[in-house]
Amino acid sequence: MTGSTFGRCFSITTWGESHGKAVGVIVDGVPSGIMLDDLDVQKMLDRRRPGTSRFSTARQESDTVSILSGVFEGRTTGTPISLMVNNSDHRSADYSAIKDIFRPGHADYTYLAKYGIRDYRGGGRSSGRETIGRVAAGAIASKLLEQLGISICAYTRSIGNITVSDVDFDEISKNPLYMPDEKAAREAAEYIDSVMKEGDSVGGVVECVVNNLPAGLGDPVFSRLDANLAAAMLSIGASKGFEIGDGFAAASLKGSEDNDEFSGNGGTVKKLSNHSGGVLGGISDGSDLVFRVAFKPTPSISREQNTVSTSGEDRRISIKGRHDPVIVPRAVVVVEAMAAIVICDALLSNVTSRMEYIRQIYER
Amino acid sequence: MTGSTFGRCFSITTWGESHGKAVGVIVDGVPSGIMLDDLDVQKMLDRRRPGTSRFSTARQESDTVSILSGVFEGRTTGTPISLMVNNSDHRSADYSAIKDIFRPGHADYTYLAKYGIRDYRGGGRSSGRETIGRVAAGAIASKLLEQLGISICAYTRSIGNITVSDVDFDEISKNPLYMPDEKAAREAAEYIDSVMKEGDSVGGVVECVVNNLPAGLGDPVFSRLDANLAAAMLSIGASKGFEIGDGFAAASLKGSEDNDEFSGNGGTVKKLSNHSGGVLGGISDGSDLVFRVAFKPTPSISREQNTVSTSGEDRRISIKGRHDPVIVPRAVVVVEAMAAIVICDALLSNVTSRMEYIRQIYER
Amino acid sequence: MTGSTFGRCFSITTWGESHGKAVGVIVDGVPSGIMLDDLDVQKMLDRRRPGTSRFSTARQESDTVSILSGVFEGRTTGTPISLMVNNSDHRSADYSAIKDIFRPGHADYTYLAKYGIRDYRGGGRSSGRETIGRVAAGAIASKLLEQLGISICAYTRSIGNITVSDVDFDEISKNPLYMPDEKAAREAAEYIDSVMKEGDSVGGVVECVVNNLPAGLGDPVFSRLDANLAAAMLSIGASKGFEIGDGFAAASLKGSEDNDEFSGNGGTVKKLSNHSGGVLGGISDGSDLVFRVAFKPTPSISREQNTVSTSGEDRRISIKGRHDPVIVPRAVVVVEAMAAIVICDALLSNVTSRMEYIRQIYER
Amino acid sequence: MTGSTFGRCFSITTWGESHGKAVGVIVDGVPSGIMLDDLDVQKMLDRRRPGTSRFSTARQESDTVSILSGVFEGRTTGTPISLMVNNSDHRSADYSAIKDIFRPGHADYTYLAKYGIRDYRGGGRSSGRETIGRVAAGAIASKLLEQLGISICAYTRSIGNITVSDVDFDEISKNPLYMPDEKAAREAAEYIDSVMKEGDSVGGVVECVVNNLPAGLGDPVFSRLDANLAAAMLSIGASKGFEIGDGFAAASLKGSEDNDEFSGNGGTVKKLSNHSGGVLGGISDGSDLVFRVAFKPTPSISREQNTVSTSGEDRRISIKGRHDPVIVPRAVVVVEAMAAIVICDALLSNVTSRMEYIRQIYER
Repeated sequence: MTGSTFGRCFSITTWGESHGKAVGVIVDGVPSGIMLDDLDVQKMLDRRRPGTSRFSTARQESDTVSILSGVFEGRTTGTPISLMVNNSDHRSADYSAIKDIFRPGHADYTYLAKYGIRDYRGGGRSSGRETIGRVAAGAIASKLLEQLGISICAYTRSIGNITVSDVDFDEISKNPLYMPDEKAAREAAEYIDSVMKEGDSVGGVVECVVNNLPAGLGDPVFSRLDANLAAAMLSIGASKGFEIGDGFAAASLKGSEDNDEFSGNGGTVKKLSNHSGGVLGGISDGSDLVFRVAFKPTPSISREQNTVSTSGEDRRISIKGRHDPVIVPRAVVVVEAMAAIVICDALLSNVTSRMEYIRQIYER
Repeated sequence: MTGSTFGRCFSITTWGESHGKAVGVIVDGVPSGIMLDDLDVQKMLDRRRPGTSRFSTARQESDTVSILSGVFEGRTTGTPISLMVNNSDHRSADYSAIKDIFRPGHADYTYLAKYGIRDYRGGGRSSGRETIGRVAAGAIASKLLEQLGISICAYTRSIGNITVSDVDFDEISKNPLYMPDEKAAREAAEYIDSVMKEGDSVGGVVECVVNNLPAGLGDPVFSRLDANLAAAMLSIGASKGFEIGDGFAAASLKGSEDNDEFSGNGGTVKKLSNHSGGVLGGISDGSDLVFRVAFKPTPSISREQNTVSTSGEDRRISIKGRHDPVIVPRAVVVVEAMAAIVICDALLSNVTSRMEYIRQIYER
Repeated sequence: MTGSTFGRCFSITTWGESHGKAVGVIVDGVPSGIMLDDLDVQKMLDRRRPGTSRFSTARQESDTVSILSGVFEGRTTGTPISLMVNNSDHRSADYSAIKDIFRPGHADYTYLAKYGIRDYRGGGRSSGRETIGRVAAGAIASKLLEQLGISICAYTRSIGNITVSDVDFDEISKNPLYMPDEKAAREAAEYIDSVMKEGDSVGGVVECVVNNLPAGLGDPVFSRLDANLAAAMLSIGASKGFEIGDGFAAASLKGSEDNDEFSGNGGTVKKLSNHSGGVLGGISDGSDLVFRVAFKPTPSISREQNTVSTSGEDRRISIKGRHDPVIVPRAVVVVEAMAAIVICDALLSNVTSRMEYIRQIYER
Repeated sequence: MTGSTFGRCFSITTWGESHGKAVGVIVDGVPSGIMLDDLDVQKMLDRRRPGTSRFSTARQESDTVSILSGVFEGRTTGTPISLMVNNSDHRSADYSAIKDIFRPGHADYTYLAKYGIRDYRGGGRSSGRETIGRVAAGAIASKLLEQLGISICAYTRSIGNITVSDVDFDEISKNPLYMPDEKAAREAAEYIDSVMKEGDSVGGVVECVVNNLPAGLGDPVFSRLDANLAAAMLSIGASKGFEIGDGFAAASLKGSEDNDEFSGNGGTVKKLSNHSGGVLGGISDGSDLVFRVAFKPTPSISREQNTVSTSGEDRRISIKGRHDPVIVPRAVVVVEAMAAIVICDALLSNVTSRMEYIRQIYER
């Protein structure tokens, strides 16, 4: 499996660069018989589209998706689904200034070090536009999960040092920062405004909650549900950390504080708390899955920085153009999409875990 | 690739349960011509062996490794290397008490939920003994890296709330907690002692530093070096979080604080700081790789907890027997081993990234 | 790795159905720095295009390929290359007659049995149009091999019972059956004409020769070069057999007849014959690679056949419309493409087989 | 996935060399709840053991298998199953004569060309002993298939030019050549005897039939059931060809001869013939699976042959020692084992092909 493919049973292969002709994804392993149309995908894609608030790049792209294969008469057929979005708004000219220079915090230097050649236009393959394929694929995964009653919700947990106090799911879509707390959202907006004036940018944390997941998902020992989630989340550009349940805070706790006690109320096993974040031994434990992803501040800032040219000469750089002062709100839907993909994969993989399941399928 | 296999070019497949006949690993994709003997592996294995301090289980196992294949006349042959350690110290009797009960914080419940059957002896497959295979494989990976001048060093960064102030690499092996700071190690030991008296346990954070890594490792977009490290680290039992470079702290920084400026001193590109932790866009950037893994407190505690039996009845449990009050010191070598495996895999994978490299091999 | 992806280091993912909007392929793992433009791919694609002789379907499609990603300023960048061909000549009406019926020798029944739903238009995913993606990917693989002086040539070895006597490589492109023997090509053409009059179809054998392959390619024991070729060839629709070197004839030989003796002429090891077909123990032996693929007759025939409807009623069917009376000539370029892909993958994979190669790359 | 691993959902990893300490296999992805003990595996292994007739090597090895993990209280647990057989009968001395020489028809030259180092003792990794792991894994696969009523039977179809006329399944185990035709078996035995006197060896063809396979197995387009079988069969040492159904003979047939007509007798779709060999479009069609594998003559012969030394000098070689004059009878069980593995993998993979199957598992 090469670097552009992710997933074992439900797998996605993304392709495309920021300023190429198009970006897209192939989703393979989708079970047949799921109702699916362009709109299902478009709705999720619209949540990551730029240009929707003053906190995101003014770059205007309609990002209209086409389903090119794998769907017939409104249903998935079991064959690979190809999804494509054209890159309508090429402004290659914007990037000629940075053609021969490494932008700090970007992948300019490392792509050149690796490949000896670099598509310098807008980050090329390392651009946020690559996530279009992920979100499109995530829309399909979400459709599948929906049919089993599983729902996923991601939101901004913090911007800079401003962290949400309460989580009101209804609030999330009401503010441009996708925070579930109106007051925090307001403060964060003010903070971003002040930082923008300095020509600077900010980071934040995305939290994601998955409801109604059955116990038993995740394959020991390397395809643990949390390990696959961690890989998925760290594969998103600008992410710097992943934690599940108590996460890093668990390191400071005692066993008696971090363990979740069990209760057998009414015959069903229930955990009395959820410090684990829904995973024990890498397998879902029937509680909500709760994890967080840290995103660094947008590296593109207009404040002057020291850097070097591709030929090794010292330079000063001030990055102009259309850039998000904070990447977090647009990363929310990407986190949600990748979570849906990981969970779909784990669900499909899990149906081969017991002989009794296999018999159920073949003894019809 | 099923759940017990990890890695694309340099791959490991671990097998074995806590109380089965043996545990082991198959390492495939090892290049031919590397000097290797049992002792190379044994040395690394001895670092994870239990019973070496008052902070680790009294369970005495010699954990002697045998290389069963893939090495001929002292050198690797390019064929799979099978490594095995017998489980000498079976004490299945210890576990009969927990046969019908779910230990809080353990994978007892989830394994049963997934498979409908559970090897209840000592955690079975979810036991820490599974890491023997990882460490043995890591020893081989380390040998390979050593030949390219790459070195890896992991250590305990914090125990509970006690965090190291300075990092003195020479100190690490001098204290049983593998902390690089003598004072912190002393305080942590006292803290653990006090917690042990309460029948409780503690967590902590392991930090890992990789020196001398060439720029260019990691395959966008899903096999990013940081994504693969995250997967590897979260696949270790009891780990709850992963961060690289500034990690979660980056979420509170501004772009101007988190970006690493470049300098072209003497023609070679150099970063003036290392907030990135050695990775930009998922590709190594030539700086030290620096990442951290959070471990929860050992779930086995003698303090009484609420739980349920496998038939759903409420119970009280107090876990007796030989258990580490803190898992962190023994996890240090596992983190190091998994890091070595991930980096080896990335190194081998990277040699196919440029046509110019391919020509170099075939135009001999 | 799901069913639409093939290859470990050099991997292809094909997508698309006969009567969908388009068909295409993602090629990932292509080393950077290879000169590549649309024309390189178009030339190879033109060799599989229908409508070029009286022996192929009259369906007229221009099959113009677009490279959508992975190439910048005329060179591959190391990122995934997306190639697409629009399905311009939709004639869905043609297929309404077979909507509710299983065509003998086709995959109609099995797709429905597997997925419970079937895109009945022109075979859907099992259509020969799926091979467009393979040929496009093969063009890229061929470019890479060309740079190392490796060349691949496939041709029709037999049609029905007419087998080529001599192999004149210059003749291949001169006749519409791609046979390397003018006389055999003439006889075969007459034979096909006579069979077409009966409303019937014929099969044949494709042979493929690879020159100048270095010894050492292929990864024991399951990724043997011959095993990977066999998988690739049997993955082509209508193929029913694969053999390498003496193939099935070897089963009737004695060891003294089938073994290739070695000679050390001038220091270099040389085989004195090539019964092995270029592979020993699954690893290339420095001789020409020679293998054959058997193709069954085109299943679409106008002669009436017994069959059943999707609801299980007995029916008679006579398949009208545009169909090749023989699939072999158009399969020639597909065999060549898949061979190029397998060999590329083996070449790239092989560079990790020796520590000495790894050192060569990193000790620059 | 590296070269020693095979299979996606049901996967095997073999390890070990002819004269190392042991050989073995890890079987991962085995569903939990299958009854399994050492004897199940031993019975199948005993069928490949050498020294059971005058047509197989006199090398005496008991080949006793141990299950080291993955089974608890007589049932599979869903965790990886490690199986090992010690190499009890080391006679390394036998091989010192061929240490510096390439045996014609063997992999001596190619392993050295690939790895620059070679375990010259008894073929090392390319030895037939590697198949012990495959057969052991095949025994587990067969247990699973048995529970679904699927049975596999392989036998010798031809030795040299002697081909079976009738197929009497009861006869197979009654003769040392595993031929299903007493008369052919007698003639073949005489033929082998005569060839042995000349110091030579013979080849043959193995045929394999799978009964009661459900329609729907195999994943288009690259994991087609026939493609996976072809890969599996060509991965067996000394195999030179694979064909399914009419195979190479189909190339000489007309469509009207090779197509299988359908009949809807009693509502169920039935094929009226089985030219396809049980696969249409790479997916099982509900008929018996029928395929054949060609094996070359044993390359080790006592007749003198020309060869070269590892330093390139011309030499004459006459291979002494214990060698099978024909590899075919011992390959029969290996073919059966690999078929079982491929079919298991396809069965497990198929349960994710429909949303309706997924619902069946999760809507308990």
